[in-house]
Amino acid sequence: MYQGIMEGLLTRCRTLSALATCSLRHSRCIVRKCYHCAPGRGQRLVVSRMFQPQNLREDQVLSLEGRASDLTCKSQRLMLQVGLILPASPGCYHLMPYTVRAVEKLVRVIDQEMQAIGGQKINMPSLSPAELWRATGRWDLMGRELLRLKDRHGKEYCLGPTHEEAVTALVASQKKLSYKQLPLLLYQVTRKFRDEPRPRFGLLRGREFYMKDMYTFDSSSEAAQETYSLVCDAYCRLFDRLGLRWMKARADVGSIGGTMSHEFQLPVDIGEDRLVVCPSCHFSANTEIVDLSQKICPDCQGPLTETKGIEVGHTFYLGTKYSSIFNAHFTNAHGESLLAEMGCYGLGVTRILAAAIEVLSTEDCIRWPSLLAPYQVCIIPPKKGSKEAAATEIVERLYDDVTEALPQLRGEVLLDDRTHLTIGNRLKDANKLGYPFVIIASKRALEDPAHFEVWSQNTESRASCPSPLRSPELQSRAAESQEPGCC
Amino acid sequence: MYQGIMEGLLTRCRTLSALATCSLRHSRCIVRKCYHCAPGRGQRLVVSRMFQPQNLREDQVLSLEGRASDLTCKSQRLMLQVGLILPASPGCYHLMPYTVRAVEKLVRVIDQEMQAIGGQKINMPSLSPAELWRATGRWDLMGRELLRLKDRHGKEYCLGPTHEEAVTALVASQKKLSYKQLPLLLYQVTRKFRDEPRPRFGLLRGREFYMKDMYTFDSSSEAAQETYSLVCDAYCRLFDRLGLRWMKARADVGSIGGTMSHEFQLPVDIGEDRLVVCPSCHFSANTEIVDLSQKICPDCQGPLTETKGIEVGHTFYLGTKYSSIFNAHFTNAHGESLLAEMGCYGLGVTRILAAAIEVLSTEDCIRWPSLLAPYQVCIIPPKKGSKEAAATEIVERLYDDVTEALPQLRGEVLLDDRTHLTIGNRLKDANKLGYPFVIIASKRALEDPAHFEVWSQNTESRASCPSPLRSPELQSRAAESQEPGCC
Repeated sequence: MYQGIMEGLLTRCRTLSALATCSLRHSRCIVRKCYHCAPGRGQRLVVSRMFQPQNLREDQVLSLEGRASDLTCKSQRLMLQVGLILPASPGCYHLMPYTVRAVEKLVRVIDQEMQAIGGQKINMPSLSPAELWRATGRWDLMGRELLRLKDRHGKEYCLGPTHEEAVTALVASQKKLSYKQLPLLLYQVTRKFRDEPRPRFGLLRGREFYMKDMYTFDSSSEAAQETYSLVCDAYCRLFDRLGLRWMKARADVGSIGGTMSHEFQLPVDIGEDRLVVCPSCHFSANTEIVDLSQKICPDCQGPLTETKGIEVGHTFYLGTKYSSIFNAHFTNAHGESLLAEMGCYGLGVTRILAAAIEVLSTEDCIRWPSLLAPYQVCIIPPKKGSKEAAATEIVERLYDDVTEALPQLRGEVLLDDRTHLTIGNRLKDANKLGYPFVIIASKRALEDPAHFEVWSQNTESRASCPSPLRSPELQSRAAESQEPGCC
Repeated sequence: MYQGIMEGLLTRCRTLSALATCSLRHSRCIVRKCYHCAPGRGQRLVVSRMFQPQNLREDQVLSLEGRASDLTCKSQRLMLQVGLILPASPGCYHLMPYTVRAVEKLVRVIDQEMQAIGGQKINMPSLSPAELWRATGRWDLMGRELLRLKDRHGKEYCLGPTHEEAVTALVASQKKLSYKQLPLLLYQVTRKFRDEPRPRFGLLRGREFYMKDMYTFDSSSEAAQETYSLVCDAYCRLFDRLGLRWMKARADVGSIGGTMSHEFQLPVDIGEDRLVVCPSCHFSANTEIVDLSQKICPDCQGPLTETKGIEVGHTFYLGTKYSSIFNAHFTNAHGESLLAEMGCYGLGVTRILAAAIEVLSTEDCIRWPSLLAPYQVCIIPPKKGSKEAAATEIVERLYDDVTEALPQLRGEVLLDDRTHLTIGNRLKDANKLGYPFVIIASKRALEDPAHFEVWSQNTESRASCPSPLRSPELQSRAAESQEPGCC
C-alpha cells in the first residue's frame, strides 16, 4: 500500500537502523510462540505493557510535585515525573527502560565516532588497587571523592572514578609495544564512581554514572597533539550529530594533571561552570583559568562575555606524567625505548543524556536528540466506544505495515493501546514523553482513503496524510538521520 | 565479480548484521579523512594496529608459559596467552578489544532472547544501601562475600552481587502496578561484585564480572510458574543458538532463597559443580540436593551417573519471599492489593564466554561459538618479497569486495598485514585465535582466475576456490547463522 514511499524512506534511514538497540529481527518470530501475547499482537510494542513511563494520567505527577523542593533542575524534574529515572540512594538512580534505550543509542554513536578515529574498546575493572593510586600520589590527592574499600584480605581498593593509573600500568605491561602500533587509542564505556559532596541535578551530578574514557599513547609530543586534535574533532562531530549547541573552552587540568585541557560545554543557565567567550574570535575558556579582573580576550584583545555551561566532555594532554611513573615505553624505529606521550579524554554518557534533555525540553515536555529518542514513533488508535473506533483495525494494520516496510523502525514504534483514554489525553502523554513522531487516527481515518494525522514533535508541526509516510516531516526526519557525506 | 553469490549470502546472513557490535557504516566515510590512515586503506581493519591480541610470534607465549603454575584451566591459559584478558588484581581482569567485541555480541543475543519474552531492560546502581540488605537479613547472611564500603557521610553500602532487594524495593515504590502489566519481566546486564575466597579460572570465577539478572513479578503462583518455564525456555534457546551442549539441573536455592531452582550447566571436567544425571529420563540435579548414598533417580528409579559442570545460568522461583518484605503489591481485577509472586534468573555473561572457550577450544587453539567470534574472517596476504607477493593487490581488493558486497561482514573482516611474516606463521596465529574463516592467498592466487584457500576453522576443513565466497563452508556458515524458523 505505501510500498513505494516506504522503499524510498528505507534507503535513506540507515542511521536509524545502525542505532536500533535491539533489532528484534529474531524476536518477531519467537514472540508469536509466546503465551503472554494475544494472537496476532505478539510483534506489537504496546504502551500498556511498559513498566515505566506508564500511567501518566494517574496520580504520579501530582505526588512528585509534592516534593518539588528536591527537584533543582528541569531535566531532573521531568525525568522523575515520567519515570525515566527512579532514585536509589543519593546521587544514584535506577535507569528505567526508556532511559536504557536512549543510553544504548548514545553509546552506539560514541562507539562509531571513537572507532572511526581508530579507537579500540576495552573494559577495565571498577575495583582499582590502592597501590596504583599511591604510585601517582592520587590516593591522597583525590581525598574524599574516592570511594574506598577493603577486601576480605584487608587489601585496599577504590572504585575507579577515572583510569589513568590502570590503563598506563596495562600498557606498560606490554613489553613489545612498537612505534608502528602508535597512536594507540584505548577507550571504555563503564560505570564510574565519585563520592560527590553534594550530588544533585539527577543524572547531571551523580555518584555513580556512565562515562566514556579514552586514553591515547603517542611516539612524540607532536604526534600526541595531533591525536589530541583528532579526538577533539570526533567530539565536535558527536555533538553535531546529536544536534546540540556546544562550546569548546580552555580549562584547568585539575587533579588529572598535564599541560593542556579543554572542556566541551553545553551553554545553559543551570550549568555549574562559568565560561568567558569572545564573540569576535570564538575564544572560550572556563573562568577558573582566566583573570576575571581584565575581561579581555587573550587572543584578539576584544571584550569577553560570560555564560554558564554544563561540562559534557573533557580532554587532557598529559605528556609523560603517567607513563614516566609506570614506565609505559615503546620501541622507536631505531630500537630505542622511549616513554609514550599520553592524552586522556572523557565524555559523561548519562550526563550528556540529561544535559540534552535539559537544553532541548520545554518546561513540561521532554525533547530528545532525534538520534537518542527511545522510540521514534507512537501510534494512537481511537478511544474504545468512540465514533472513530471503527478505525482501530486500520491503525493496527498501519503499525504492522510500517514496521514491515521500514525494517529500521522495527522496535522503534509503539502503539498506545490505552484505549480507555481519549486520544487527547494520550496525545498529552506522548507530548510529555517527546516521541519524535506521533500518528493519530482521528475522524478522517474513516475516510476513503484513510487519513492520519502525523505530529512531528521536535518541529511542532503536523500534517494530515493519506499515508503517514507521505508526511513531509517524517520524510525529512529520515533524511536528517542520514549523516552528511555518508554513503 | 562475486556479486551474484554475494547477494545470495547477503540475504541469508541477517544474524551477523544484527550482532555486529559497531556497524562502521558511518566510520567508513569518516575514516578516509583520518590522517592516521594511509590513503586507500582507511577502511581496512589490520592486525598490525590491534593492541591485543597481537604479535604472537614473539616472546609473549613463552613468558606466560613460565608461570604456568598459576594457570589452572585451559580457557584461562589460552585467553591470557593471546592477550584476550590481562590480570588487574586477584579475580579482576582487563577485557581486551577482541573480548569486548565477543561480550557485546553475547549481550546482543541475550537482549534478543530476553526481549522476545517481554523482558524490559533496566539498569540499577552497583552501590546498594545496607538498609535494603538488613531488611532481608542478607547483610549478615552473605558474610564476607559482600564487598562493603562507607561513603563520606558514613552511610554503609555493598557492591551489589545480585539485586533482589533493589528491584523489589523499586517495584514496591510503584503504587499503581496493575495486574494488566503482569507478568513484569525486568532485567539488566551489569557488573556484579563478589569477594570470592579463592578467585580462579580467569573469567570463570572472578570477583568482578558481568551478569544478566532478570526479576519477574506475577499475579499468582501458577502465573509465576508459567513465567519460570518461559524464562528457562529462553535460556535453552540461547545456549542452543551458541551451539553449546547444556544441562538443566535441579539445584539448591542457597542464599537467594525461594522454593524451586535450576542450574544451567555446561558439562566439562574443569567444572566446579558435581551433577547427577539419569540417562534414561533426563533427570539431572546438583549433588547438593541429592542423597548420594542412593544414586537412584527419584523420577524413574533408574541408576544415576555423575558428571561435572560449569554453572552458566541459575533460576529461582522466589514466591513472596522478597515482595512480602518490601510490600511489592499489585492491584487485581477486583481492585484488591496483593503481593506479587517473584522469580529471579541469572546468566553469567563473562562466565558464559570463558566456559564456551573452555568447552570448544583445543589444547592450543581458541574456538568460539560462531555467533560470538570477535571477527568472522581473517585474510592473509602473501609475504613481502615472496614469489606470491604479486597477489597482494588482489587480496586487498578481495577485502574491499567482501566488505562492500556483504554489509553484514563490515567490521568483521581483518587483514593480517604483518607481511614480514610467512603465511604459515600468520596462519598459526589465526588458528590459535580461532577466526571462523581464514582466507589465504597462496600460489594459486596468481592463476587466472585467482584461487584462494578458505579455511573453516570450526569444522577443520579447507577448500581452494576461484572466489572465497564460492566456498561451500563459508556459505553454510552464513546459512547456519540464520535462526531456524526465522523469516
